[in-house]
Amino acid sequence: MEYSAVPLARLIEHFQRMPGIGAKTAQRMAFYVLSLPKDEARSFAEAITDAAEKIHRCGVCCNFTDQEICPICQSPARSRKTVCVVENVEALMAMEKTNEYKGTYHVLHGVISPLDEVGPEDITVKELLSRVSADGVQEVIMATGSNVEGELTAMYISKLLKPLGIKVTRLAYGLPVGSDLQYADSVTLTRALMGRQEL
Amino acid sequence: MEYSAVPLARLIEHFQRMPGIGAKTAQRMAFYVLSLPKDEARSFAEAITDAAEKIHRCGVCCNFTDQEICPICQSPARSRKTVCVVENVEALMAMEKTNEYKGTYHVLHGVISPLDEVGPEDITVKELLSRVSADGVQEVIMATGSNVEGELTAMYISKLLKPLGIKVTRLAYGLPVGSDLQYADSVTLTRALMGRQEL
Repeated sequence: MEYSAVPLARLIEHFQRMPGIGAKTAQRMAFYVLSLPKDEARSFAEAITDAAEKIHRCGVCCNFTDQEICPICQSPARSRKTVCVVENVEALMAMEKTNEYKGTYHVLHGVISPLDEVGPEDITVKELLSRVSADGVQEVIMATGSNVEGELTAMYISKLLKPLGIKVTRLAYGLPVGSDLQYADSVTLTRALMGRQEL
Repeated sequence: MEYSAVPLARLIEHFQRMPGIGAKTAQRMAFYVLSLPKDEARSFAEAITDAAEKIHRCGVCCNFTDQEICPICQSPARSRKTVCVVENVEALMAMEKTNEYKGTYHVLHGVISPLDEVGPEDITVKELLSRVSADGVQEVIMATGSNVEGELTAMYISKLLKPLGIKVTRLAYGLPVGSDLQYADSVTLTRALMGRQEL
């Protein structure tokens, strides 16, 4: 498709590089930008450079923050003795939304995946290890995904942590709340059966 | 949802204002920006300000362009005697994709819609009128949408143009190519019947 203006084509191209954004959506987004008042477009652009320049990883847990240490790690209300290990900041946010977890986090920024050539050195395993020894962490909750890579990563990290005398736990497997038994896959159902609890 | 960094929250907010972008997609987009190398994020931001500042309406047809006159209006291969009137630049692009149309365009940047309080003075009707008289346009093809607003706009403009001795045509109604008769709505089918052509 030929566009009548180079800056427009360039903008569409940038939007199209985003995950899950196709040609049509990218085009619609670019037209949205053109419809903005100039100062709002400028503020949009600034938000991008600002985020890219000011946001970095928290010195403790690798969460995204614009301070040295993220608000969760800074909070006196959060326990440093319990660390929940998540794959990415999205997962951290999902945990936070439960309003149930009062410990701190560690963001791996990836999972171990031999097929994609991602090894332990490519994610923040080293940072986790140096932190647990220094901080006197008592429990590490492995909250990586329940897929092959998530399992592998959880196993790998737990093998490193257990010799240090740290309790390593994993989120429970089972039926999603509100689901019907007939639609559950058999692996999930098997795990739900194995993990059954007394009423 | 509380984000651990103000610049991140601000960026998500900007993405979320885009049409069709919900909270989750906006969040994913913002994380994509954070994953970019700094210079690529800067180039993304520049693309936004560039587009907003350099792109304006073509002095002839109101298409988006970064020059005074858009490439279509400049092209010696395109006939100035035939003008296709479209609602927006997306529609112009759809027409261009057919590779069949060799005339020029006029972009209304909207449709007349009394319910939304959009009148003829809010779209580029005035520009169209002054252009057709000056350029010696022979045919105006009304290519607004086949909905109520599109029809109304086409009727309104044709009533202004006909007294000037200009031929005004409308895109044909009928079955979409590749469609089954049983799924066509009856209004479309009626129009297809009325517009039937000899084989």
